[in-house]
Amino acid sequence: VSASKSIIKLIGNYTSKYAQGYFQYDSKKSGGITLGHLRFSDNPIRSTYYVQEPSLVVCTKDTYLDNFEIVEHLNNNGIFILNTNKDSQEIVQELSPKIKKIIKDRNISFYIIDAYKLAQSIGLSNKISTIMESIIVKLSNIMDYDTAKKHMKEYAKNLYGKKGPGIVESNYKAIEQAPDYLEKINLPEEEYILDDNTEDELYKLINNRQGNNIPVSKFLNMKDGTFEPGLSNKDKRRISNVVPKHIIENCIMCNQCAFVCPHSVIRPFLIDEEEYKDLPENIKKRCLKPVLPALKEYHYVLAISAADCTGCGLCISICPAPKGKALEFQELNEEEQEIFDYLDNNIKDKGINPTNVINSQFVKPKFAFNGACAGCGETPYLKVLTQLFGNEMVVANATGCSSIYSASAPSTAYSLPWASSLFEDNAEYGYGMLIATKTIRNRIKNIMEKNMDNPNQELFKLWIDNMDNYDITKEVYEKLDYNKTPVEINELKDYLINRTIWMVGGDGWAYDIGYGGIDHILSTNDNFNILVLDSQVYSNTGGQTSKASPKGVVAAFASTGKIQNKKDLARIALAYPHVYVAQISMGASMNQMLKVLKEAKEYNGPSIIIAYSPCIEHGIKGGMGKSVENEKLATSCGYFPIFSYNPRTKKFTLDSINTDFDLYDEFLQSQTRYSMLKAINPNNYEKLLNENKKNAIERFNHYKDLHEKNN
Amino acid sequence: VSASKSIIKLIGNYTSKYAQGYFQYDSKKSGGITLGHLRFSDNPIRSTYYVQEPSLVVCTKDTYLDNFEIVEHLNNNGIFILNTNKDSQEIVQELSPKIKKIIKDRNISFYIIDAYKLAQSIGLSNKISTIMESIIVKLSNIMDYDTAKKHMKEYAKNLYGKKGPGIVESNYKAIEQAPDYLEKINLPEEEYILDDNTEDELYKLINNRQGNNIPVSKFLNMKDGTFEPGLSNKDKRRISNVVPKHIIENCIMCNQCAFVCPHSVIRPFLIDEEEYKDLPENIKKRCLKPVLPALKEYHYVLAISAADCTGCGLCISICPAPKGKALEFQELNEEEQEIFDYLDNNIKDKGINPTNVINSQFVKPKFAFNGACAGCGETPYLKVLTQLFGNEMVVANATGCSSIYSASAPSTAYSLPWASSLFEDNAEYGYGMLIATKTIRNRIKNIMEKNMDNPNQELFKLWIDNMDNYDITKEVYEKLDYNKTPVEINELKDYLINRTIWMVGGDGWAYDIGYGGIDHILSTNDNFNILVLDSQVYSNTGGQTSKASPKGVVAAFASTGKIQNKKDLARIALAYPHVYVAQISMGASMNQMLKVLKEAKEYNGPSIIIAYSPCIEHGIKGGMGKSVENEKLATSCGYFPIFSYNPRTKKFTLDSINTDFDLYDEFLQSQTRYSMLKAINPNNYEKLLNENKKNAIERFNHYKDLHEKNN
Repeated sequence: VSASKSIIKLIGNYTSKYAQGYFQYDSKKSGGITLGHLRFSDNPIRSTYYVQEPSLVVCTKDTYLDNFEIVEHLNNNGIFILNTNKDSQEIVQELSPKIKKIIKDRNISFYIIDAYKLAQSIGLSNKISTIMESIIVKLSNIMDYDTAKKHMKEYAKNLYGKKGPGIVESNYKAIEQAPDYLEKINLPEEEYILDDNTEDELYKLINNRQGNNIPVSKFLNMKDGTFEPGLSNKDKRRISNVVPKHIIENCIMCNQCAFVCPHSVIRPFLIDEEEYKDLPENIKKRCLKPVLPALKEYHYVLAISAADCTGCGLCISICPAPKGKALEFQELNEEEQEIFDYLDNNIKDKGINPTNVINSQFVKPKFAFNGACAGCGETPYLKVLTQLFGNEMVVANATGCSSIYSASAPSTAYSLPWASSLFEDNAEYGYGMLIATKTIRNRIKNIMEKNMDNPNQELFKLWIDNMDNYDITKEVYEKLDYNKTPVEINELKDYLINRTIWMVGGDGWAYDIGYGGIDHILSTNDNFNILVLDSQVYSNTGGQTSKASPKGVVAAFASTGKIQNKKDLARIALAYPHVYVAQISMGASMNQMLKVLKEAKEYNGPSIIIAYSPCIEHGIKGGMGKSVENEKLATSCGYFPIFSYNPRTKKFTLDSINTDFDLYDEFLQSQTRYSMLKAINPNNYEKLLNENKKNAIERFNHYKDLHEKNN
Repeated sequence: VSASKSIIKLIGNYTSKYAQGYFQYDSKKSGGITLGHLRFSDNPIRSTYYVQEPSLVVCTKDTYLDNFEIVEHLNNNGIFILNTNKDSQEIVQELSPKIKKIIKDRNISFYIIDAYKLAQSIGLSNKISTIMESIIVKLSNIMDYDTAKKHMKEYAKNLYGKKGPGIVESNYKAIEQAPDYLEKINLPEEEYILDDNTEDELYKLINNRQGNNIPVSKFLNMKDGTFEPGLSNKDKRRISNVVPKHIIENCIMCNQCAFVCPHSVIRPFLIDEEEYKDLPENIKKRCLKPVLPALKEYHYVLAISAADCTGCGLCISICPAPKGKALEFQELNEEEQEIFDYLDNNIKDKGINPTNVINSQFVKPKFAFNGACAGCGETPYLKVLTQLFGNEMVVANATGCSSIYSASAPSTAYSLPWASSLFEDNAEYGYGMLIATKTIRNRIKNIMEKNMDNPNQELFKLWIDNMDNYDITKEVYEKLDYNKTPVEINELKDYLINRTIWMVGGDGWAYDIGYGGIDHILSTNDNFNILVLDSQVYSNTGGQTSKASPKGVVAAFASTGKIQNKKDLARIALAYPHVYVAQISMGASMNQMLKVLKEAKEYNGPSIIIAYSPCIEHGIKGGMGKSVENEKLATSCGYFPIFSYNPRTKKFTLDSINTDFDLYDEFLQSQTRYSMLKAINPNNYEKLLNENKKNAIERFNHYKDLHEKNN
């Protein structure tokens, strides 16, 4: 994108031509693809649509050629530039017959360049935009290249001057040397045999940006608009060059790596002797013997779905193994994925009860391979939630990051009933599901009561007496003789099993736009759970301040530091004495997090859980690989206290341990959303951040008082 | 309406004819008029519009003839029945030439009846529907009268059987005797001279239901849609037969009668010696000498705008005069109104500072003669508010009772800037006014700063330094030489004076439908005030339960007693430590109410005040004339604690005195919304009302704790 934008400026400012660009962005938060559509003309450009038949196409990643239409619409005698670290021989060998045929038939000039290699060599690390800019200008011949070079250098100087002369110099080199790194490929004369009979499945067509070409007939088996769940399992986007490798000898089998993984990529498997016999040798080599008595009969393997990994490094960062990290980065490789796939396909669930952190990770998550950012602070909560209650959950999802990374068609990350409506109505939406389910299940009850002469009558009675019990209703569901049940019960059988509604969304929804609905349903006596993924900012739309944002934070709509106090949603919810209210933070306490999720689920009434969720918008120093560490600091410094109030026992418990406000400044300085305030608002930053701290102390003391009153 | 409905049934069930009725209701809560449109036909009736040219017209109140078109559209040879206590001679004398001419020209049969007199005499008190039914059937000749009589009696028996044989017998008498009370009027032969040159003003045309005939040209002077304020002053609807009379010798001049009057009908005037000289004798006779030193120089008169009185009797009920009530009912009479009008027009405002209950009532209210129910619990708060801050207020009104009784076009009850948007957005709406005003005033500031060479520069400087001060900005506004100010300042001069935004609405708005917006603006640091008129029920739409309704209350959507707990809005608002929060109740403490209104106004930040407001929907035993007494009991029994939290001093004050929960049951039993629960829900009423009390005790203890922590 930045190369495209530079070129537009260049042509617009220094030639008599007109230039225009449109950009298409992906809904994937990590490793998404971007398309730039550039037009140049001697006449003003009035087109408002994307470029349909380009004269020049640039592809920055060779793996895209496998999935997307790249050269398919290129003009005769056009130019195709491919950035790749493969040499010409490899490329010629690997290109599909279809692409080769197009290049030949249309007389396309085909160039390759290893831009990353050049960038590395001239000190630009992985920044290739100046290189790409230079070669595009060179090959397109759209303006005199020597004039262009002069202006590109001026531009680079203006842009990078502040970052030091070294960077400017490197960019000069990029401009000068890039054309020399281009290699023109001449494809050999041969006949290309096309296999045109393969018909891609719906998932692949949509994911490969060919959704517009799908005929309606393909949708006939999803008449109600429901997408197949768990399709993200097919993504395998291979977006990270590095993935974790298991250092078996260091591993203590604590499963924390799996617990914190935002993309459910890393997973421990328990293998029994039967399964062990058939295990491929390379997996056998990776087996460990668990030390916990309850697991002693199994072999333990930690596997990595490498092709789904985003390379955030949280697993490595959290690893507490005393002898040295039990995970380190290695290059992305197919063997890791094959191991994972073998285990995922062949190893049975051992039915381990997810009573604690270790055990929770032996359950296959029903939320996996989502589209969130590398190191996302929200997704681990959702993954663990599905490990605890995946079979009995229904999710109503507010619009926001969580709806986008959970289900950008066709990549559905959940393997359970999930739906999303709008930003502003998710509490009402989920509550509607609850009321509808309740009504239907009462109808089932009425039908059963009227059919007590039915051969299933024992099961009917069992069901009626336990209709809110998941295990028993599931048992009845499985045992009923549907040949003999009234036809209406057969029609409604999906509702026999008792399920719990979870309303999920971010703070933009829960504190702001959807809060009216949350307040309304909290006032009821119904049984549901609200999980607020609190990133303290509107993450999905680019970091606007929400009412969850604390004072002094720099965010959109608060560009010189927010001047209002943070809203204390938990305290507000506590004004309803019949509501279960908790704050949790994975990095602060995985155990408290598990305890709260279970208590909320078990409480027969409204529950609301606020989960502290670091976000790229926080600008955590050291990157999102430090997000769990940062969560821990947020709680220990008093910034985000963790606690729970259970209306059943009327007990309020402050779970923050050894809170030390002396760490507060360290926390604020660990995130650019706070640390940058000094430069942006030198007059007020001290006042704002002091008040931020003061508010946190008052908030903490309020909860401490509640705790002490109870204990 | 009930007579009409009976007739429709009668015709529909016992003849071969078809019958249909449409009804038009008024937006006035007390003394509103209702129109019934009845059609009868041998063929099915498919008309969906009101009757345009009736064959028979019934008017139940002779004063309607002065204002509304009654006979204007009557058919030739039609029938006109007028209920009146006047005799035929008086009627002939008083009827307008226009009406008489229509009756003569169209050969209309004109009857009068004194239905109230007949009702009284046969033990039906003021219920005239059976009488009217009987004479309409008789005169319309739409079915055989003897058959009709038989069926009317059956119907009366079914309807009133439960109320005892006496009532049934009285209704039989009504059916039998009514036709004998009819008197046919033959107008004398004379020439009727019509004065067709008077052109009614807009107000009168709309109020007299002739709005549809107004040409657009009449609206040219209100191009922005703004109605003239205070037009309710012209209503003078004379809806109550009884109005208060001042018993001078008993009066202690405490002004409490004026304070509690929901319609601003009763008002004390202070008269100086100059004014006294010109006073008509009948007013002089009513003058008292104030005993308070500060008022000693004046004469005191209590006047009653009798034609606006609804006869609720609150003034009599509240009167604490030790020698005996200083007010008693008398028949509605014109002298009272003349006295009031004289004083209102001729006595100058003495500029008494409304520091206490007595003094507050010498200020002419800017909210008067509203359309609320007799004895309304909401309107006294609004009236007093305008007495305190009327000059510097802007009101944003949520939809609900308060918007209807404040401004049913053309009856505008406020004499200050007022506007209403929707139900769900009043907080946002008022906040928008605030932001707009702030922006415009900052523009004024900028213009002034850029024009410091202007002859007005001293005033500019004074204004800039005190732009949030009402008195000083008003002074500047008055002193500026507008011939010499920049033209933009002249255009924006309305904004020179600093004003405060008050968002006003009911609990349906504040607790439920508009709460999301309230929460949002409470989170800001801006300066505004929210007044919640908390009737604990959706009053305007007929009494649906709101989140402010306590457990066990019988209301629409909670027909067997509400099962959810009351939402504690004050406690929720207190979760924002920078918000001024208070609960007030006029009957519990007028002084605390005044203190809170002033503190909220003075606090430079968000304020929210929840005002306990009895409503006809409460079913207070003894009627709305007991509403202030009932308010007092609500607080003293602990049902509605009064308190305030001032963020400036960080002090929470519980103002409830001598709370005694032993009075709680007495309070619940004083209102049918609670007392009827025993009959409606015999199994649960005890549990629900016990929990209602338990919640109240917990709520009270919460506030007591806050108070004790502070003191």
